Amino acid sequence: MTVAGKLRAAIVGSTGYGGVELIRLLQNHPDIEITSVISSSSAGEPIELGFPHLTGIVERKLDGVEPAEIAGRADVVFTATPSGVSAKLVPQLLEAGLKVVDLSGDFRLKDGAEYEQWYKHTAPPAEYLEQAVYGLCEVYGERAAGVDFISNPGCYPTATLLGLIPAVEAGWIKPESIIIDAKSGISGAGRGVNLGVHYAELNENFKAYKVNKHQHIPEIEQVLTDVSGEKVTVTFTTHLVPMTRGIMSTMYAGMNGAYSEQDFVELYRKYYSGRSFVRIREAGVLPATKEVSGSNYCDIGFSADARTGRVTIVSVIDNIVKGAAGQAIQNLNLMMGWEETRGLGYTPVYP
Amino acid sequence: MTVAGKLRAAIVGSTGYGGVELIRLLQNHPDIEITSVISSSSAGEPIELGFPHLTGIVERKLDGVEPAEIAGRADVVFTATPSGVSAKLVPQLLEAGLKVVDLSGDFRLKDGAEYEQWYKHTAPPAEYLEQAVYGLCEVYGERAAGVDFISNPGCYPTATLLGLIPAVEAGWIKPESIIIDAKSGISGAGRGVNLGVHYAELNENFKAYKVNKHQHIPEIEQVLTDVSGEKVTVTFTTHLVPMTRGIMSTMYAGMNGAYSEQDFVELYRKYYSGRSFVRIREAGVLPATKEVSGSNYCDIGFSADARTGRVTIVSVIDNIVKGAAGQAIQNLNLMMGWEETRGLGYTPVYP
Amino acid sequence: MTVAGKLRAAIVGSTGYGGVELIRLLQNHPDIEITSVISSSSAGEPIELGFPHLTGIVERKLDGVEPAEIAGRADVVFTATPSGVSAKLVPQLLEAGLKVVDLSGDFRLKDGAEYEQWYKHTAPPAEYLEQAVYGLCEVYGERAAGVDFISNPGCYPTATLLGLIPAVEAGWIKPESIIIDAKSGISGAGRGVNLGVHYAELNENFKAYKVNKHQHIPEIEQVLTDVSGEKVTVTFTTHLVPMTRGIMSTMYAGMNGAYSEQDFVELYRKYYSGRSFVRIREAGVLPATKEVSGSNYCDIGFSADARTGRVTIVSVIDNIVKGAAGQAIQNLNLMMGWEETRGLGYTPVYP
Amino acid sequence: MTVAGKLRAAIVGSTGYGGVELIRLLQNHPDIEITSVISSSSAGEPIELGFPHLTGIVERKLDGVEPAEIAGRADVVFTATPSGVSAKLVPQLLEAGLKVVDLSGDFRLKDGAEYEQWYKHTAPPAEYLEQAVYGLCEVYGERAAGVDFISNPGCYPTATLLGLIPAVEAGWIKPESIIIDAKSGISGAGRGVNLGVHYAELNENFKAYKVNKHQHIPEIEQVLTDVSGEKVTVTFTTHLVPMTRGIMSTMYAGMNGAYSEQDFVELYRKYYSGRSFVRIREAGVLPATKEVSGSNYCDIGFSADARTGRVTIVSVIDNIVKGAAGQAIQNLNLMMGWEETRGLGYTPVYP
Repeated sequence: MTVAGKLRAAIVGSTGYGGVELIRLLQNHPDIEITSVISSSSAGEPIELGFPHLTGIVERKLDGVEPAEIAGRADVVFTATPSGVSAKLVPQLLEAGLKVVDLSGDFRLKDGAEYEQWYKHTAPPAEYLEQAVYGLCEVYGERAAGVDFISNPGCYPTATLLGLIPAVEAGWIKPESIIIDAKSGISGAGRGVNLGVHYAELNENFKAYKVNKHQHIPEIEQVLTDVSGEKVTVTFTTHLVPMTRGIMSTMYAGMNGAYSEQDFVELYRKYYSGRSFVRIREAGVLPATKEVSGSNYCDIGFSADARTGRVTIVSVIDNIVKGAAGQAIQNLNLMMGWEETRGLGYTPVYP
Repeated sequence: MTVAGKLRAAIVGSTGYGGVELIRLLQNHPDIEITSVISSSSAGEPIELGFPHLTGIVERKLDGVEPAEIAGRADVVFTATPSGVSAKLVPQLLEAGLKVVDLSGDFRLKDGAEYEQWYKHTAPPAEYLEQAVYGLCEVYGERAAGVDFISNPGCYPTATLLGLIPAVEAGWIKPESIIIDAKSGISGAGRGVNLGVHYAELNENFKAYKVNKHQHIPEIEQVLTDVSGEKVTVTFTTHLVPMTRGIMSTMYAGMNGAYSEQDFVELYRKYYSGRSFVRIREAGVLPATKEVSGSNYCDIGFSADARTGRVTIVSVIDNIVKGAAGQAIQNLNLMMGWEETRGLGYTPVYP
Repeated sequence: MTVAGKLRAAIVGSTGYGGVELIRLLQNHPDIEITSVISSSSAGEPIELGFPHLTGIVERKLDGVEPAEIAGRADVVFTATPSGVSAKLVPQLLEAGLKVVDLSGDFRLKDGAEYEQWYKHTAPPAEYLEQAVYGLCEVYGERAAGVDFISNPGCYPTATLLGLIPAVEAGWIKPESIIIDAKSGISGAGRGVNLGVHYAELNENFKAYKVNKHQHIPEIEQVLTDVSGEKVTVTFTTHLVPMTRGIMSTMYAGMNGAYSEQDFVELYRKYYSGRSFVRIREAGVLPATKEVSGSNYCDIGFSADARTGRVTIVSVIDNIVKGAAGQAIQNLNLMMGWEETRGLGYTPVYP
Repeated sequence: MTVAGKLRAAIVGSTGYGGVELIRLLQNHPDIEITSVISSSSAGEPIELGFPHLTGIVERKLDGVEPAEIAGRADVVFTATPSGVSAKLVPQLLEAGLKVVDLSGDFRLKDGAEYEQWYKHTAPPAEYLEQAVYGLCEVYGERAAGVDFISNPGCYPTATLLGLIPAVEAGWIKPESIIIDAKSGISGAGRGVNLGVHYAELNENFKAYKVNKHQHIPEIEQVLTDVSGEKVTVTFTTHLVPMTRGIMSTMYAGMNGAYSEQDFVELYRKYYSGRSFVRIREAGVLPATKEVSGSNYCDIGFSADARTGRVTIVSVIDNIVKGAAGQAIQNLNLMMGWEETRGLGYTPVYP
């Protein structure tokens, strides 16, 4: 079942940013071997044609998307495919006996109707929505052990939920007061071309988009509702920052008591005890996106304001690593019963 | 009193970003002549030594800061000086019979004790705090006519207050619920050098700073309190965007009714009727910072969310123009009884 | 023939970067009124739909491209159209009695065969190639007076030729030794969308393109051959810089004598005497692109190296202003017999 | 002598960009253990105070610079110190029995007088200049085996020399015709603060600096003279690109024959046969800086121009990796007799 004792992995969507990041990160994983890089649009081409940085690193040509063939070459598949594509493909891969970590958003919402409302695609069959384990590792990691199918969280929800859950679960903040002001680098928009990603339109520019309409809203609400035990509705705004990588979620909530920054630091450090990839900063210190760039870390800091009774929580990730490819590998590690940090020991690239 | 029928202007702090922007904008003002560019640190040098872009445009050498000499050369002085410096200098300039538009923050807060708490400098004498007209043109413009001394608003307060005041005044939003998530380009930090403005530290980076501690907080609260008639306390966060110019204020507030985006558009268009520099976008359209870059515009858009009962207001300016030098000239226009747009007909530079 | 005594101008290609820059710059021209903004692809739409920064500035809707209609509305037409389009359109506009300043490259090469080799389009009729005056203002400005048709120079040739011509004409450098290493901001690639202008592909990246193949090579060679009286062949490399605006041409040539930097400064200052838009820096000082950003200046500096017997000449412009829209207006000024600086008094935007 | 069988390494200059990059890269080296991070200016502090991205990764506090103490803790020292500092420190470290890889420029020039002319510091004692092996791995790698002291090449020379040497050695290009137009990201300027690295001065700006005066000129000439057997003098220009990482060297030379791009590809592939970190692109394909970012690769491409008889060679590296910390580790690998790629298997970070 393995090549030289390694788990064989295929990557569908190898010509997107999530796909090439999986390739980068998996180069140094001691227990995984990439045996197929797959692209429906560029099958037959060498991957270095579109991604010259992989010259001499990935020699194999791009394969096409044939579930049966994939099953012959791989044990696990990462599906870094657009929304709507995974909905159809993943069931076939699972039927073929493959393990799947899905990086699209197709299996994150448990309610198919809600999916269709926000994503504007036909929902996958309910049984697969049911089967999918939502892979927010530091919160639901124990559910991943031994399963065959993980739905990898969205980039914004990862930064946001890791920043909110300990306080929500502890009852320290009022769920109905939560406002999330999120900012992302441009790589989050993917490699597709349109005026919205034109350099001259984005450089020296800061813009809001999809305000109150982003498909990550129901994902965040679903988890906060699960954690808090009550229906949570949030205000969520997304902005584009003129940079390539990085997400910051700046979150506001009314506090249920006079908690200090030190209180939050201790609460969160306890909650994330033993989880290497979440780093809680000292009281009064807020993280910046570059401090996690290229790595799988999520860094969190706090400002508690006695004047207003509100806490401001700042959470940062690299959107392509912890927000996509890195957490997907972390999930596979958990599925396989390996240490979650395996092959992910990347120090942030600074500066 | 004038050179060739023009008002003679001096600029103190000509080697800061606010100062050179005053120089740029005043080149095309039909009724103002720059007769002195002043810098305490570089007196005697040609300005093009530090600012080669002014080669052949400003031939005069930098003058020193001597109120009596300034009074001999100018009718009006723009003080683009650091906090703490204006506090001492402006009274002398006023005593010397000069008109003053002050771009520092020293005369914005009416309460000297509050100034000292937030600014950590000794407050100016109370009579000058009293005398200073807070020059938020589209709100307090009528107070500027004929006066000798204007305190020019801060960059963040300009974007924020223009975005909030019509709704606060109309009673459409709950003042106690206001949360302001603001973002600024790096030029806002000034031309001083420290690790915090190092290119390699800021590029590809997004960071929060001075959270709940920024000296613009009391300025915003003072005006909102004035407008609403009740004591207003806000949550205010500032972030640095890896770009040179531009501020976006993303503002959140609970609504007192089921107002639509179109309702807000109409309310604001009515409020700012006749004021050329505030542009209210169509319902559902949000402005980006580049759309006002290099110009004196403040553009505002809305997203009203029935799910949460909150409105999100987005307001953008060029921090050095409408947030500093441009509004200062607009204030001078109002002081002199000229049209507020005089000499400020700059179309945004795009892309 | 004029509106309120002003020359009526139409802009074809108003939805490209050259077109909107013409709109920006013409707002402050005292003798020109824009009476038609034209776009074949977006006719009937308000221009602010695609360019929100023009909200409230240009109220008129986009017109279609009909030469007869244009002739009824305008006296002069700026054609900021892609290569191949102007070749067909300009003859019709001239036949309709309009003055034309063409910003495409279609009429720059006098030899139609050479045009077809480098541009891969059918050349315009020879009589129009003949008629077109090559509008490098500071070199051929006197030829523009009173003519009806100007072919506006390319962005790279403008920076390059202004930097080389005085030395070539004086015989100080060896024409056969000229090597031009040019760098441009991304706006030079236009507003069309493709992977080559994707933000995430260009940001934090520096790349060479069209090396030895750029269509501006024959344009540069044609002029240097004209100026030197001998056939000149140059090595010319173009690179993309992760910024929006600006071109730098770094030029190398063997010297025919032991000239100092001061010698070059004096030679060039004499050559460009009376021409406001070319600024020759002091000996040993080299200009940077930001020092001309948003303005019509071309700044030039020198490093003469006794060790190698070569001079390095650095020339910078804003590619959309002096490299396109600004020089086009300068050319119209010259055609009309006005001062060349008319309406172009824009101080560089710094920082 | 080792900790758990690993070579113990100390890093002097741990609070500069070269130092923290050594820390990043060494995290994954299987045979090296960092046992001391040293900073003269910040001794006693936790390193995460100045570099929060290292939170939880490097727990140890910064040590001071005491050669005897270093010798007690380490087997090898990387000196990532400013010019002038290494000149004094390295002899002490060598006397204390340590192996040294020096990243300053102090030991690169064999002629002390030439060093003093270009660096403006007192030269190190001649015996150490003599002892230092110039560690351009792919060219002089065999000299590194078993030695105690390597002088790590400069960033510009690394990109430039790897791009020129095969052609010079083969006699395909004329050494006296070589012109090097080099461009670097801002991190090359180091972490020191001055107006020259201010974000607002560099962003949206492209500038030349130290033209014909850069201290890397004699380093390049020394090696080309060694390789060609004749005294070589080059024209060398350096520019700053508004990005953090990356160097491109665009090199021009007259050819001694009618060589094609394919000829160059084959010549270079043969020269660098077996060296993983130099990647020669296909004929007609030129590399961009982002394609090697974060990695130890040097990618090279060619454009041979029959019109002018010149070849244009483009060579790119990450200035902090292959241009500093990465090549330093590669040198240590060679000193120790290990594979040169050991611990350096970093795929470029893209996008």
